[in-house]
Amino acid sequence: MTTTAPAGPLTFDDVRRDPGRFRVLTGDRPTGRLHLGHYFGTVHNRVRLQDIGVELMVLIADYQVLTDRDVAERPAEHAEEIVLDYLAAGVDPTQATIFAHSAVPALNQLLLPFLSLVSVAELGRNPTVKDEIAHSRQSSVSGLMFTYPAHQAADILFCKANLVPVGQDQLPHLELTRTVARRFNSRYAEIFPEPEALLSAAPLLLGVDGAKMSKSRGNAIALAATADETAALIRGAKTDALRHITYDPAGRPEVSNLVLLAALCLDRDPYEVAGEIGGRGAAALKAVVTEAVNERLAPLRERRALHARDRDHVRRVLREGNERAAAIADTTLTEVRAAMNMVY
Amino acid sequence: MTTTAPAGPLTFDDVRRDPGRFRVLTGDRPTGRLHLGHYFGTVHNRVRLQDIGVELMVLIADYQVLTDRDVAERPAEHAEEIVLDYLAAGVDPTQATIFAHSAVPALNQLLLPFLSLVSVAELGRNPTVKDEIAHSRQSSVSGLMFTYPAHQAADILFCKANLVPVGQDQLPHLELTRTVARRFNSRYAEIFPEPEALLSAAPLLLGVDGAKMSKSRGNAIALAATADETAALIRGAKTDALRHITYDPAGRPEVSNLVLLAALCLDRDPYEVAGEIGGRGAAALKAVVTEAVNERLAPLRERRALHARDRDHVRRVLREGNERAAAIADTTLTEVRAAMNMVY
Repeated sequence: MTTTAPAGPLTFDDVRRDPGRFRVLTGDRPTGRLHLGHYFGTVHNRVRLQDIGVELMVLIADYQVLTDRDVAERPAEHAEEIVLDYLAAGVDPTQATIFAHSAVPALNQLLLPFLSLVSVAELGRNPTVKDEIAHSRQSSVSGLMFTYPAHQAADILFCKANLVPVGQDQLPHLELTRTVARRFNSRYAEIFPEPEALLSAAPLLLGVDGAKMSKSRGNAIALAATADETAALIRGAKTDALRHITYDPAGRPEVSNLVLLAALCLDRDPYEVAGEIGGRGAAALKAVVTEAVNERLAPLRERRALHARDRDHVRRVLREGNERAAAIADTTLTEVRAAMNMVY
Repeated sequence: MTTTAPAGPLTFDDVRRDPGRFRVLTGDRPTGRLHLGHYFGTVHNRVRLQDIGVELMVLIADYQVLTDRDVAERPAEHAEEIVLDYLAAGVDPTQATIFAHSAVPALNQLLLPFLSLVSVAELGRNPTVKDEIAHSRQSSVSGLMFTYPAHQAADILFCKANLVPVGQDQLPHLELTRTVARRFNSRYAEIFPEPEALLSAAPLLLGVDGAKMSKSRGNAIALAATADETAALIRGAKTDALRHITYDPAGRPEVSNLVLLAALCLDRDPYEVAGEIGGRGAAALKAVVTEAVNERLAPLRERRALHARDRDHVRRVLREGNERAAAIADTTLTEVRAAMNMVY
């Protein structure tokens, strides 16, 4: 019954060998502007995939914002900023489809048949759901959070995406999507691919205070930040008492995080970057980081500023993406209805 | 925040005073032909509501079939038979909207915001869900069954139905729909009515074997059965050893059920019906029941046969209902998106 061999996660090099065979589903929640953590974690990799000829479906997961909070704050405004960030990062809307979850009813309808394919126990075993249940009182976990693995299956399968970039810890998530595809195909008709994981060795970038990078902590460098704002953030970054700069993520997390940031921006090895700074201390490190970040982001910021002057275009990119996604979802839902003998 | 006073369930007489104020949501699962249990339990009451000027939305709940079984058997064929049964019973498709759950994507999309409004604990407290969990091993309860109370809220609220016919035991179900409406209105914008319950004192009709009436047991008299099939079923009905016929549902369930069936068909009091048969015994009772059922159903069966000759018309009724329901759902979803600031 399986349509693809369960060969374990693929790497970028695997994909490069035959990029035309893949459609990737990936995305972000519209909770604020994208920052360097997003850029080096996912966005840059998407652009690399696009540029070797992989088809990208980029989901702005507005409903997903509601899995862990009561109300989403200004999702439409955030979505527009994220589209700008994507355009700035090099996502090409003539090749990639950028769309919002709530704008594609046929995608959302797939949630219903998919929920019939999974048990309550399977939903509760999902690591994200399990974590949420452990961290809140179980009674306060929303129905939307609990069913999140089934939405994720709908997000991926509506467009028959066959490749999903994930971190090592997200591999179990994709397993349920594969299960949904397999069960649907076996109960009804062979409609869905079993998507494969593209394992991205995303570096863990911390915020400038050494804590998890997050917009709400104010410790993240936004793609849209100015060079001066970037310099100020890095100037205030936490370091430690040792003058000699080394790359030692476990022992010296704050300093190593700055080294890593410079290395990522320069496409260099962090040990080399640290070695070059050596005894010149934290001030020299910060100067290197500031220059590296600002040089790396300069072309993105220029593109962003250019697009920001034409908001109509930005909104049109999303509207056209929504329409393309809706057409794909309608086609899939039509197949699903026929397979389930629900055509009236 | 409440839009209607929580005045407790309404009766038919309450509704008759101002029928134009109500839109009713009601429906059936397409698992087979409707029988006398459906007719006297719900369908006849719907026609009464329609005939005093209440607007009916009649849902053929195809996805709901999947809450307690893996695959729905021929839902489209069953739906067509049910539409025929509705037409036979007097549902007027120029006044009532008959539609299938799976044919209305915008209705199904409402499930996502609605799931964000309820907790896992609230879903698990729903009597139907609780019952299902108690009767199966928890692990085998499907995600669709578990989230059923939220689908039900979407089924009712998508068309802003403000009246839902329920039995006494179903009152708690409607409570969660009211909660969803209240929470949505309070978090976003005043969009949904809090639907009221129309308490129908539906008589409990058993099958001809004295067990729960059910198509799969073969103990039910289908609206579509012929007069001869009806006679044969009643001839084989279970009675008891006492010759004198009385109406005593607790003490003599099988005999009383036959008496009740005759009384319902004749619009008479079951004690009177039993009294008139008295010492003439079970054979006389069965003759009375057979005649009463066949006379009552004769005009329905005639209408059914008439419509059954024009299957295209039957399918058109459902298709037009689906289109009307989809237009209503699209309008509601547009309002919901605007209220949630998810317009792109």
